[in-house]
Amino acid sequence: MEYETIQLAHGSGGRLSAELVSRFFLPRFGNETLNRLEDQAVVDFPQGRLALTTDSFVVDPLFFPGGDIGDLAINGTVNDVCMSGATPLYLAAAFIIEEGLPMVTLHRILLSMEKAAKSAGVQIVTGDTKVVNRGCCDKLFITTTGVGRVPAEANISAANLQAGDTIILSGSIGDHGMAILTSREGLSFASRVQSDTAALNGLVARMLQASPIIHAMRDPTRGGLATTLNEFATASGVGIVLQEAAIPVRPEVRGACEVLGIDPMYVANEGKLVAVVPGEVAGTVVAAMRSHPLGREAAIIGEVVAENRGMVVMRNALGAQRIVDMPVGEQLPRIC
Amino acid sequence: MEYETIQLAHGSGGRLSAELVSRFFLPRFGNETLNRLEDQAVVDFPQGRLALTTDSFVVDPLFFPGGDIGDLAINGTVNDVCMSGATPLYLAAAFIIEEGLPMVTLHRILLSMEKAAKSAGVQIVTGDTKVVNRGCCDKLFITTTGVGRVPAEANISAANLQAGDTIILSGSIGDHGMAILTSREGLSFASRVQSDTAALNGLVARMLQASPIIHAMRDPTRGGLATTLNEFATASGVGIVLQEAAIPVRPEVRGACEVLGIDPMYVANEGKLVAVVPGEVAGTVVAAMRSHPLGREAAIIGEVVAENRGMVVMRNALGAQRIVDMPVGEQLPRIC
Repeated sequence: MEYETIQLAHGSGGRLSAELVSRFFLPRFGNETLNRLEDQAVVDFPQGRLALTTDSFVVDPLFFPGGDIGDLAINGTVNDVCMSGATPLYLAAAFIIEEGLPMVTLHRILLSMEKAAKSAGVQIVTGDTKVVNRGCCDKLFITTTGVGRVPAEANISAANLQAGDTIILSGSIGDHGMAILTSREGLSFASRVQSDTAALNGLVARMLQASPIIHAMRDPTRGGLATTLNEFATASGVGIVLQEAAIPVRPEVRGACEVLGIDPMYVANEGKLVAVVPGEVAGTVVAAMRSHPLGREAAIIGEVVAENRGMVVMRNALGAQRIVDMPVGEQLPRIC
Repeated sequence: MEYETIQLAHGSGGRLSAELVSRFFLPRFGNETLNRLEDQAVVDFPQGRLALTTDSFVVDPLFFPGGDIGDLAINGTVNDVCMSGATPLYLAAAFIIEEGLPMVTLHRILLSMEKAAKSAGVQIVTGDTKVVNRGCCDKLFITTTGVGRVPAEANISAANLQAGDTIILSGSIGDHGMAILTSREGLSFASRVQSDTAALNGLVARMLQASPIIHAMRDPTRGGLATTLNEFATASGVGIVLQEAAIPVRPEVRGACEVLGIDPMYVANEGKLVAVVPGEVAGTVVAAMRSHPLGREAAIIGEVVAENRGMVVMRNALGAQRIVDMPVGEQLPRIC
């Protein structure tokens, strides 16, 4: 019997669970390890340090301009792995599905995950599927966990910023969050806003080739660039000074932010990174980034200073300064 | 400001997220790696093979006789790692929390996770928290991912069964599933039924000391022992013959199953394992298991045969036979 929607029995561990895996998951993600259908993947791992990261994706809506929950779940976890300097190797994917989800919806999302995983060069080697009763979750949540190998020389941490370091941003900010918000609210004036969801491991590899020394690196997702830089400043006990004019914001994103009264500094990104490097290698790193499709708009946006410890200060074109604080309240729930 | 319940802003990545982590998560799970609060954990890993497993826990109710979603999420993932013969080392934990969850509830569950992780000897090294609007998930879902090191000599797989092998069960079946079901339905006659949730890595280590050769091993969770053995028979292309009288079922579990018309062979366990070993080492392995608190009732329950490929057959005390098939429909949703 064929079902057009997810049934509770698809999560029971019985025959329907097995069919769901063999008809939907394996054709998309199948590889030697996953195909064994053991309760765990056993994979080779080279000696050294391992990077491990996990993220639950609960984005609403499931499909949005520029992406969907599927590629977001792959790219987000690949990015968290590679921000340590690690090469992402393996992913685990756990699905919580609401009873009644159309099979075609699941299929579309799995196709998108397949494409994103191939593009990032990672294998999904293990997974899990749970089905909950109608009304007990909102359509679909995906938790992805990533494993990567950290090169011996990498020492990248939010606590490593030093006065004199340069802050580099890989491209425009606010795209993902505004794509979600405007599509959720049906704001037609902002229809051109697209999520920037992308896997950054290729860009990171190019940066590390240019300079093995990167002090700190993160993808500014929830809470936006403001939150990431505040975390850096706090963890390292330094100040950060930004040049507002140097931070790229797409016109359509800026327009939507202005209408909605939102500061793009606090809006989530899903395909951007901010790196902190010694001032003397900044030019080399930016040049390397610009040679990669995901870093074409890379720019130096500020510097690390010894003053104003734990604070992020923004300077505008006229020289006026304001403090960019951590966000206190909720801006955009279920953005990723 | 102190909140008594989870707010959407606790998941925003801003100040309230940081407070939730520092006041609730770090005091419970804190270790050198987690305390760094990077977006990924970087940990040492010895050369060799790595076991990776992930599971989402959506159990309803959150608290049940014998355990809660917290220890279940730790033990379930530790068990999936160690069933490969691996030593569990690191865990990642991702939380999807419904807006309005009382902080005291979260705190109780985190305490339980802390205790279970310590007891199993694993560290939670990275995590994630998402908050979804009221009505968009049912209180709390936890996805745990486990990483372990597989010893070079281990070769444990559902596909490794051979005719002549012996099937060993570590203890009574049906406890967890019936504890959930009877507590959910408020069946007071079954009040003594307790979940068997437990971490089995200590038991597995003792088994591997007794015999480095174990052909297959799994914890029969969703779908129960019947499903696990059917998966073994199918993956290895062999038949399995069970002796019904040898399979331990607690009287209170048997009683509840009879009243509800449920076969304990299909009911989930969360602290039991089934192992398939060469006939000649079975006695040694059972003796080793019985020396461990979680294996005191270990018993030989059947054998692997060349006939009836892909099938599991149950023999009762009178010699009558019946086929134990894969479950088709949903028996107990949200059991783990």
